Amino acid sequence: MITSAEMDRLVAEIGDELLRRMGNATPAPARGEGLNIPDKICPDCTQRCVQTCARKSAAIIAAGADRITASATTTRVDPAIAALIDHTLLKPEATEAEIVKLCGEARQYGFASVCVNPYWVTRATGLLRGSPVKVCTVIGFPLGASTTESKRAETAAALRCGAQEIDMVMNVGALRSGNEEAVKLDIAAVVEVAHAHRVIVKVIIETALLDDNQKAIACTLAKLAKADFVKTSTGFAKGGATAADIKLMRDVVGPSVGVKASGGIRSFEDVANMTAAGATRIGASASVKIVEGAPAGARTDGY
Amino acid sequence: MITSAEMDRLVAEIGDELLRRMGNATPAPARGEGLNIPDKICPDCTQRCVQTCARKSAAIIAAGADRITASATTTRVDPAIAALIDHTLLKPEATEAEIVKLCGEARQYGFASVCVNPYWVTRATGLLRGSPVKVCTVIGFPLGASTTESKRAETAAALRCGAQEIDMVMNVGALRSGNEEAVKLDIAAVVEVAHAHRVIVKVIIETALLDDNQKAIACTLAKLAKADFVKTSTGFAKGGATAADIKLMRDVVGPSVGVKASGGIRSFEDVANMTAAGATRIGASASVKIVEGAPAGARTDGY
Repeated sequence: MITSAEMDRLVAEIGDELLRRMGNATPAPARGEGLNIPDKICPDCTQRCVQTCARKSAAIIAAGADRITASATTTRVDPAIAALIDHTLLKPEATEAEIVKLCGEARQYGFASVCVNPYWVTRATGLLRGSPVKVCTVIGFPLGASTTESKRAETAAALRCGAQEIDMVMNVGALRSGNEEAVKLDIAAVVEVAHAHRVIVKVIIETALLDDNQKAIACTLAKLAKADFVKTSTGFAKGGATAADIKLMRDVVGPSVGVKASGGIRSFEDVANMTAAGATRIGASASVKIVEGAPAGARTDGY
Repeated sequence: MITSAEMDRLVAEIGDELLRRMGNATPAPARGEGLNIPDKICPDCTQRCVQTCARKSAAIIAAGADRITASATTTRVDPAIAALIDHTLLKPEATEAEIVKLCGEARQYGFASVCVNPYWVTRATGLLRGSPVKVCTVIGFPLGASTTESKRAETAAALRCGAQEIDMVMNVGALRSGNEEAVKLDIAAVVEVAHAHRVIVKVIIETALLDDNQKAIACTLAKLAKADFVKTSTGFAKGGATAADIKLMRDVVGPSVGVKASGGIRSFEDVANMTAAGATRIGASASVKIVEGAPAGARTDGY
């Protein structure tokens, strides 16, 4: 048996060693970068780089991130953790003041992106100009039941406003009706528009509305349609991300596609569970609490 | 005091008298018509006809619709009640089989329309060809936070697919940020596209997210933007229609604009309360139970 004190020491040492190997002992200038550029080969896994930082982050988390955080930076926040998170505010009643606050937090903590509704993309783009934080927006959100033509137009409009990442909702009803070809073409239409601007696409499959077979089919269709990520949840359905779903999704898409966990992620422990199961990006509205390692508090749902 | 038996007799007599005055003693061939054609002058109120049937229906309900129903048709269903209702199925996981069932029920009972997500408009249009039941769809739904450009494109796409009524969601976040001009232009853009096809527009203000002043401002902006209806709720927010909100909305828009109550309307009594408060259209998924006068049962939310 290893004692608690021995475990603490081991965790600290492994954490330090990981940090040295990552060259991450000073605040990383490359934080967030590399995550979002498809087709860049990762030296660790020889896959697209979307996996790289996340694999390292999962290792860091497993090794005890609190210890790492304390030694890596002068603040309590681990930049590798922050760089996993899409800082999200999608509730319809969000005001301009709340969007301004969201973007300020994203700059301060170094989140991968802010995820906002399309109406706010122009404002967020202005607020984040000159920062590495990307502006992510949602398409066909949250029902996924608009037409492909609409999703394509909505994507093009969002890109014109400055969106740098696209989270689209798959057509769940079409999938549940057996219209796999329609689902694939719907995703492919958005991917085509986005990739033409070198913008990545995450496909929300809304796991809470699917059985396991349907989840596997959805992930396969997203991969066939050349999506960059599959993502669990909108935050508007009854359930959010689970470790079991993340594992299923990762198993289906393999290492070359990202997996984003979203919906109900409220704490550092939730993030650790999700990355351990295979998630390479996290969607959360409780992002500040998460990176500060605060205990899980009031419900947040990525909404 | 009037006894219960006297009340029953009175209700029955008033019901019969109303039916005679409406010329509605046989199944009405014009059921549903007149409700949806803007600019047709109503002989009763000299306003646009969108008000006419609803005023009569409210009177019927007040006079005891069960009695009327029994004498007016060979079924238990009152066509004037059915013609008030947009038979609604907007949950993202709805399958083709459920859309087929919805359209069949709408034909059978004579609902004003089916209200479906844009992806299903083409299918519903095919299923309802040759019937007076319209196909209504939703735009910017349910968050209202897409761009005006997207809402315009989504509306145009829906019209090409055959949509005959448009329920759009107002930009709630913009309103709550004081951007009234943006809110008005957003509505006006959709109205312009729809009216060019002689298709009416209902504006969902999502009452659950607004205070009373904001509700009044929202209704005013919808009226200024030449919307045909204001509507309470998407069914996706925390609350749905209330009689108090319907009264407020009716007071603000006056008699020339329709008011649609939606969200949480589960029973015949709910419909009666809403029409008494000023509603001229009802959105419901429990429509069959409502017109059959079934007691309120499991929760439905217009979703």
